[in-house]
This record gives sequence, C-alpha cells and structure tokens, in this order.
Amino acid sequence: MSKLVIVGTVAFDAIETPFGKTDKILGGAATYIGLAASQFNVDSAAVSIVGGDFPQEYLNLLSDRKVDISGIEIVKEGKTFFWSGKYHNDMNTRDTLATELNVLADFQPVVPAAYRDSKIVMLGNLHPLVQLSVLEQMESKPELVILDTMNFWMDCALDDLLNVIKKVDVITINDEEARQLTGEYSLVVAASKIQEMGPKYVVIKKGEHGALLFHKDNVFYAPALPLKEVFDPTGAGDTFAGGFAGYLTKSDDISFENMKNAVIYGSTLASFCVEKFGTERMVSLKSSEVHQRLQQFKSLTQFDIELT
Amino acid sequence: MSKLVIVGTVAFDAIETPFGKTDKILGGAATYIGLAASQFNVDSAAVSIVGGDFPQEYLNLLSDRKVDISGIEIVKEGKTFFWSGKYHNDMNTRDTLATELNVLADFQPVVPAAYRDSKIVMLGNLHPLVQLSVLEQMESKPELVILDTMNFWMDCALDDLLNVIKKVDVITINDEEARQLTGEYSLVVAASKIQEMGPKYVVIKKGEHGALLFHKDNVFYAPALPLKEVFDPTGAGDTFAGGFAGYLTKSDDISFENMKNAVIYGSTLASFCVEKFGTERMVSLKSSEVHQRLQQFKSLTQFDIELT
Repeated sequence: MSKLVIVGTVAFDAIETPFGKTDKILGGAATYIGLAASQFNVDSAAVSIVGGDFPQEYLNLLSDRKVDISGIEIVKEGKTFFWSGKYHNDMNTRDTLATELNVLADFQPVVPAAYRDSKIVMLGNLHPLVQLSVLEQMESKPELVILDTMNFWMDCALDDLLNVIKKVDVITINDEEARQLTGEYSLVVAASKIQEMGPKYVVIKKGEHGALLFHKDNVFYAPALPLKEVFDPTGAGDTFAGGFAGYLTKSDDISFENMKNAVIYGSTLASFCVEKFGTERMVSLKSSEVHQRLQQFKSLTQFDIELT
Repeated sequence: MSKLVIVGTVAFDAIETPFGKTDKILGGAATYIGLAASQFNVDSAAVSIVGGDFPQEYLNLLSDRKVDISGIEIVKEGKTFFWSGKYHNDMNTRDTLATELNVLADFQPVVPAAYRDSKIVMLGNLHPLVQLSVLEQMESKPELVILDTMNFWMDCALDDLLNVIKKVDVITINDEEARQLTGEYSLVVAASKIQEMGPKYVVIKKGEHGALLFHKDNVFYAPALPLKEVFDPTGAGDTFAGGFAGYLTKSDDISFENMKNAVIYGSTLASFCVEKFGTERMVSLKSSEVHQRLQQFKSLTQFDIELT
C-alpha cells in the first residue's frame, strides 16, 4: 500500500464563532489532515511536535485511526502550540486573538525511517524551512508532493516559501493568497503564474464558493456544498487537503482526471468539518455518511446535456 | 413550437471598465435576453419601449434573429432609456453614473396578440407593476413564468415586488439581493424563504462564482467558467436569464433535471457576454462556439466517482 507523510501543527485551538466559543480544544493542520486522510485507511504518518501538556487521548485519536504518531515529538517540559481566533458574522473573515508558538518555535521535524520512502508527501501549513526539511529527508523523490501554505509566510518568509514552492507538484492556496503571491486578480492568470513557479497542479480554495484545480490549460471546478449554516470553518482547508492527499494515496493514480475526484473528496470532507466545533465532526464521521454526501455532490454538479 | 414573451428594457448604455469606455451603445435587459434566447431559434417577442432617437439597425438586430419586435413601442417624440455605469477594478461592483428613464417613465407594456398564449414568460428587470401588467395580459396561465429583479425594487417598491414574486414560478436574483430580500445570510436558508414567497424554483446568481438552482430540497450548482479576464460584465445576468428561458422554451420540458441544463446554457452564454463591450460578443456569437464552450463546461464540472 502507498504511504503518506503529513507534516503540520498538532495544537490547541480556542475558537469563537457567532454560534459559541470553546476552551482549548484539539486543533492543528496535521491533526485535520490526518483525520481526513484516515477516511481512506491509508498508511500515514504525522510529523509534528507537542508539549508535555498535550493529552495522550488526543494522540490516541490519531493512532486509533492508523495515523502513525512516532514522528510527533513530545517535549515534556514544553507547551503545545496554541492558536485562538474569532470569526466574524460572515464566517469568511476572522481575527487572530492569540498565537503562542511554544514548542513549535524550535521544531526540527524528523520523518520516521519507515516513511522516508512514502509515495506522497503532504506539507501542511508551517514555516517553509520546516516543510523543506521534511522533503530533504525523503530517500528518493516522492511521486507527489502537495504543499499548503498561507499569506503569513508570503509576508515574512517569501524567499523560503518560493524555494519550497519550486520543489512541489501541487499547491493548495486560497484565492486571496493566490492573488497576493502573483499580483494577479484573475485566478486563471494567477494559477498560470504559480505553475511557472514550480507546481504542475494548482488548487485554489474559495471557501463557500468551492475550489478550482488547474493544470496547463485544464480547469476543474468543485463547488462547496451549499450549507444551511457553517458552524466553525476552522480546519476546513486542512481537511480539504487531507481528503485530497488521502484519496490520491489510496487510489495510487495521480492523473489530472483522478485529481478531479480527489478535489471532490476534499470538498466532501470539508463540508462535514464545518458542521461542528474543531475536530468534533471529523472524529465522529462514518464512511456511510461520506458516501451519502458524495451522492449529494454528484446531483449538485452533474448534468445531462448530450453533445456530439 | 413553444413561444416566449420577454419584457424588459431596450436601452442605451454607456459603460466604463478598467479596459476602456464606450459612447452610447445598445443595451437593456430585453435586448440581452432576446439575443441569448435567439441562440435556440425559439419564437420570441420582446415587449418594451424606445424613443425616436433609437436606431432602426438596433431593432433589426433583434428582428433578424427572429425576435418579434411588434411589442416594442416607439415614441417618436421621446428619448430612449439611458444608463451609464463605471465598474471598479474587481468587476464585481459598479457605480451608476446616470439613469435617464425618459420614455420608460410612462411605459404601458402591450403583449402582441399572437404571443398572449405563450408557454413561457420572461419578466426582465423592470418596475414590478410593469411585470405584473404583462402577466395579466396572458390569455391563460403560462406554463412557466420567470422573474428577474434587483435590489432597487426592494428599496422602493417592495410591496409591488412581493406581489409579483407571489405569481411566478422561477426567480433569478443575485446573492446579495437574496440576502436583502430575506434577511438571511445563508443562501440555502434564503432560497427556502423565497420559495415560501411563491416561486417554486430559485436561481441565485453569484457572478464569477456561478449560479445555484434551488427547488425544495434539491440544489444544483453551475460554476461560472473561469476566465482570463472579464472585459465588461454588463448584461451577463440578463444573458443568463435569456439562455435559461430560451433553452426551456426550446426543449419544452420544465422538470428540475432539465432546468439544470438550462442553468448550464445560461452560464455558458453569460461567459461569452462578458468577453466584449455591451452586446458585441452576443451579436457575433455562432452556435459552433456555444457547442465548444458547453464541452468546456462539461470537463470543468464532470467527474467520475463510481458510487454504488
């Protein structure tokens, strides 16, 4: 079976939305990516770092789902990365209330030996130098390297970011970030410029408006499922990435046609993630529910115009 | 063959975009709707009003495409409705620079006798009382009445608008207008509330983010084709409505499944409309080009996940 390496934060989040607020709960990019990828029963490993304050039960949540946690370093005397944010009424914008790097400040990722030959690597949002270090530990060039990032690194580590972007096959990025990275308003033009930077495939996430996959002159558009309410958007982008990477790992087919399916799986899983606070919905998610929602995605998008 | 009645403005527009500006050119909701519907070779009639200053060649553009113009009243001593607007850099917002109602101020629509038994009626954006008057002239209840409107009427003629909304089968409206009409941020909830107001089908237009079709618990999402540049958005919404109405008139099937196709045709035609100033692209549009772009829409949205 193909293997998947995931690097990203494993963290505490405290979230406030118009629907309520949480204390410190389980969060982090690698957490959401791992939970999403676990839906595909793939052999994955999370590479991350936590402090001595991090509950074993949170780690068990991952290992119970066959996410290898031997690459999650535990710094007994350290504190776990903490992020706190508050969403505005439209759920599309948020204010960061607190960011405590803690053990993340000195994170030196180590990919477990058994995963250095993985076919797929998912570089979750982190400092580009940490992402690069993971890539450099791989024994041979992975079949597919997927990078997620955010505007923060464009603002304060652009050269490092461009350097890692050069080395990846797929980038997932949101619309505003794609515009910031390229200085282009049109997402078609932005995606084309990003392909010149390195990645052959560009996924632009547009939140409630869905996601676009670009490759050369090909475009695929997966809508987001229209929802009655978005309860908490935290982790939706990471869940998308985890679904995308997990599906590709399982299906062992990295063609553009199959990447379309991966985008649909990513969107499907993200549509669950936002239904409850934090990881709650992803933890309880059953494969029968995923199957049913894929059916909804089909009727949402498929039409029947005969063209000759 | 089924017949289609179109009511709306036939007008002069002066448009400014980041790409340039025009003098007074052909515009108006009924113009764009008629041009789009003409792609389906349906038997349609435009009901509107112009002044003595309106060039015969503009009327010929419609009649050449089998849009009956006997319902377009010409007020020899009057001046044609004029709108002028300027688009911002993002093309999603615009300022109205001038609105001169002229002959439109006293418009009493008259549906040509030969079209009072039409199966489909497309009520283009106009004062709700004018839209209502057209409906009242129909001999029997049409099979399908489609209403387009805008926030302006919600601000200054809400009661009249709600009265006409009550009597239609389909409403096309943009996302912000749907929110304004219902006071709901979620488009799923807004569409549900609008269905309670009368229309069984609700189409929410989201510009570059595509369009949603709602009917009871069913949703269909047609993306907009991602474009390198949007040259001039004027008339895109009317072109969408004209493609939607024209396709349904031609196919003579008003099921939800077929309405999905109508939404795709509307989106396809709208994607051409924005490529040049005003009606220029719609006037030159060939059916082979439409066919090719429908193919693009298919590869843009269709995926191949087998579900059992």
